[in-house]
Amino acid sequence: MAQTNASRSNPVRGKKNARALLLSAASELMRERDSLNFTLSDIAERASVNSALVKYYFGNKVGLQWALLERDLTTAITELQELVKLDMHVVKKMRHHLAGLIQLYFRYPYLNRLVIYTMRGSSEEDAQKLSDQFFKPICDAYETLINEGVRGGVFKPVDPKLFYFTAIGSCDQIFSAKFVLKYVYNIDDITDDLKHSFIDSTLKIIMEGLEV
Amino acid sequence: MAQTNASRSNPVRGKKNARALLLSAASELMRERDSLNFTLSDIAERASVNSALVKYYFGNKVGLQWALLERDLTTAITELQELVKLDMHVVKKMRHHLAGLIQLYFRYPYLNRLVIYTMRGSSEEDAQKLSDQFFKPICDAYETLINEGVRGGVFKPVDPKLFYFTAIGSCDQIFSAKFVLKYVYNIDDITDDLKHSFIDSTLKIIMEGLEV
Repeated sequence: MAQTNASRSNPVRGKKNARALLLSAASELMRERDSLNFTLSDIAERASVNSALVKYYFGNKVGLQWALLERDLTTAITELQELVKLDMHVVKKMRHHLAGLIQLYFRYPYLNRLVIYTMRGSSEEDAQKLSDQFFKPICDAYETLINEGVRGGVFKPVDPKLFYFTAIGSCDQIFSAKFVLKYVYNIDDITDDLKHSFIDSTLKIIMEGLEV
Repeated sequence: MAQTNASRSNPVRGKKNARALLLSAASELMRERDSLNFTLSDIAERASVNSALVKYYFGNKVGLQWALLERDLTTAITELQELVKLDMHVVKKMRHHLAGLIQLYFRYPYLNRLVIYTMRGSSEEDAQKLSDQFFKPICDAYETLINEGVRGGVFKPVDPKLFYFTAIGSCDQIFSAKFVLKYVYNIDDITDDLKHSFIDSTLKIIMEGLEV
């Protein structure tokens, strides 16, 4: 962990980066354990950061989860919004998005579980905020893409809000239920090769199913 | 709750059915709360059953989860295995299965989350048992169906183990992330009509994507 070494050798820079280090530590722990279970001390220890700073930066575990969702999802959502606006064939845009979604889950395999877990642990008010920040922009993008494809005669007239679940679910499940690979097929990890096979397989089914 | 009333009015029958009443109570609570969070006392109270019986029948919460998976999944898996053997066109069999899977999740919306949660909380040995009991038979059935369809020239040559995740994920996500309907679309519940639209939409995409 280069960053941790940097924080050790340079306390000023380390302090400045403590927030980012804590987020990386939480992200790494969830990947390694294939689980959302970690304590605030676990991540303080992993990041070599004083555990008091966890409370300072995030308040509590939910605050940290939210910050991690912002770190992992905000760029992806902005990229999706840019993609929607591109002067590119809508079929290519949707293919690009679905492949990117699998790449995103490959990088952060806990992501869909984390957003579901955080929503379920939130008050109505916070759940609405989370939804406005993370779900609504994605749903809006799907609506624009599907409508564009339907108008152009290349997509079937599917309901965009139902397509949202088809897309997210089919791209995520291999990461949320990775243990099926292990216990049924003796496959311990999702390698780069397996990821690419999964992208091919998913695009073949979902895109050709969506296209007229 | 007719069963609970029966247990109140007829203590002998009630005692005999206490195990089933506790499972129903857990199932109902998870549906109503749209959450896997319940305590053993919650369900004993809901079932009007002495809470000591929860320990007697299930040992602990994991034991109860396992029993509930057996109650909810065993019949569905047997039906899938019967379906695979039927003298019926393989496209019709797969359509029938996917529609049935959505019906199953509609009835027990917590099911996929519960099996994932139980796996993640299990020892390696128990996870292997759970997998042999619940995942392997489904994966085997998918392999048989896909191979039959590919040999018959009606399915694309997709990898059955990857198709497993596409199918489960695309059928489940609307139930695992139901709150997206609420917070983005102001839709409070998955009605029978919405379920049927979702079955139509999912079959249109997944089946037409799978077919040559």
